[in-house]
Order: sequence, then C-alpha cells, then structure tokens
Amino acid sequence: MEYGKHYLVEVVARESRNMGNKKFIEKLMTEIVEKLSMTALKRPDIFKFPHPGGITGFHLIAESHVSIHTWPEKKYFSLDVFSCRDFDEKKVQEIIYRKFRVADYYHETIERGLLINFKKSGRFPSQANP
Amino acid sequence: MEYGKHYLVEVVARESRNMGNKKFIEKLMTEIVEKLSMTALKRPDIFKFPHPGGITGFHLIAESHVSIHTWPEKKYFSLDVFSCRDFDEKKVQEIIYRKFRVADYYHETIERGLLINFKKSGRFPSQANP
Repeated sequence: MEYGKHYLVEVVARESRNMGNKKFIEKLMTEIVEKLSMTALKRPDIFKFPHPGGITGFHLIAESHVSIHTWPEKKYFSLDVFSCRDFDEKKVQEIIYRKFRVADYYHETIERGLLINFKKSGRFPSQANP
Repeated sequence: MEYGKHYLVEVVARESRNMGNKKFIEKLMTEIVEKLSMTALKRPDIFKFPHPGGITGFHLIAESHVSIHTWPEKKYFSLDVFSCRDFDEKKVQEIIYRKFRVADYYHETIERGLLINFKKSGRFPSQANP
C-alpha cells in the first residue's frame, strides 16, 4: 500500500438502542461500505457477546476493513474504516448521525501506508531491535 | 468500554517472505494474542487476495481485535491491536522483529474509550450534526 487512510470514530449516543442488534449493525457496516464505493468481499462478520450484549463486527473489503465494537451498557461504540485509498469521512459521519441519536462524536484520521510522512505524523521508526 | 488502547504498526521488511503465507500470518496473530494474554474467541480469519497475494487477517478476541493487511509486493504490512484493556506494545514489537527481517518499524499508540481526554489527545467532538 502506497497510501492509506484510517478513520477512527468514538460515538456516545443518548440511548443504547440498536447497539446490540446484529441486523442493525450489519446494515450499518454494509451502508458505510456502499456509500464509500468500497468493495465488499463477503457479508460482515457479526459476533454478539453474551451479557451485556455488545457486538463486534468486521467487514472484509477489497480496500482493507471496517470494524466496530459496541458497548450497549455504556451507550458507546467505536468504529474504524481502514482503506488503501482515499475516502470521504464525512459520509461515514452522516450515516452514523442518521442511525443513532448521537451525544458525542469524536473522530480522528490517520494516514497509513508507505508514502506518508512519518516525521510529520509524529510517528517515528524504532531505533533498534527491541 | 471505559478505557482502551489501540496500537497501530507499519512494517517494512527486507524481504516479502511469509507475507503471503496464510499459515504464517495465522500463527503470527495467534502468538500476539497469546503473548498479550488475550482471549481468542475463534481462530483468526485469514483471507488471501489473488495476485499479488496479499493477506487480510482478523482475529476476534474478547478484548476487541487484532487485524493485519499485507502487501508482499511492497514488502509491507500494517497491523492493529485494539483492546479494551491495557497491554504491553513491546511484546508485539518483539514478536514482529523475531518473525520478519524488519527494515522500518513505525508505530503509534492511541487511547480509545470513554475515559480518555479527547482534548489532550487532539481529538474533538463534532460541533453539530454534519
């Protein structure tokens, strides 16, 4: 990968509704992939934990992946979109705001891949073997 | 999740050997999870792309996930360890240095979850609906 983009999101909602709903989470991930014009390689893998019912979802796409972890008991979830090509983060944000009653939305975009300026990004290579 | 840690790694190796080897990548992920005393919920999912033979791996763990994307043609891979509890990133680095002839190792740790100081982290909540 020459250049990639990783979008990290933390969402706190006003209610936990749908954060433990497998079908809902699957649809959320499918919609993100579609709206970003990415290529799904299979349906999202959705794993539901027993009590308190959080979900881990992973969507394998040709461009890399979308992952989600929900904590309904905290009305919180984290979501990552990692792609080997550029995409519009705003589209992800719009989908999430439409599907949840968002209280707080924290996000960050990190450049990845070989072409990024690691010095500028604040990341540095290791000096020696650990 | 009250507090979580996300460790992002970019590795350039001196040779691409094993970056397209499904068994090798599966073992790499399994070892990371074991060494960090995390809880595997199933075997890693390993997907190999046709030419040029890169791999995407996803390991579902009770604590969240480990993911990897390899680009053998670039002698490069990216790896993420996302956990809802603290762990020692140095152990991940040690495993990677043991398994690959590392040329460059870039890494970054990002705090996630509800308890982090988003202002300090440089991440801010959205001001309004998009």
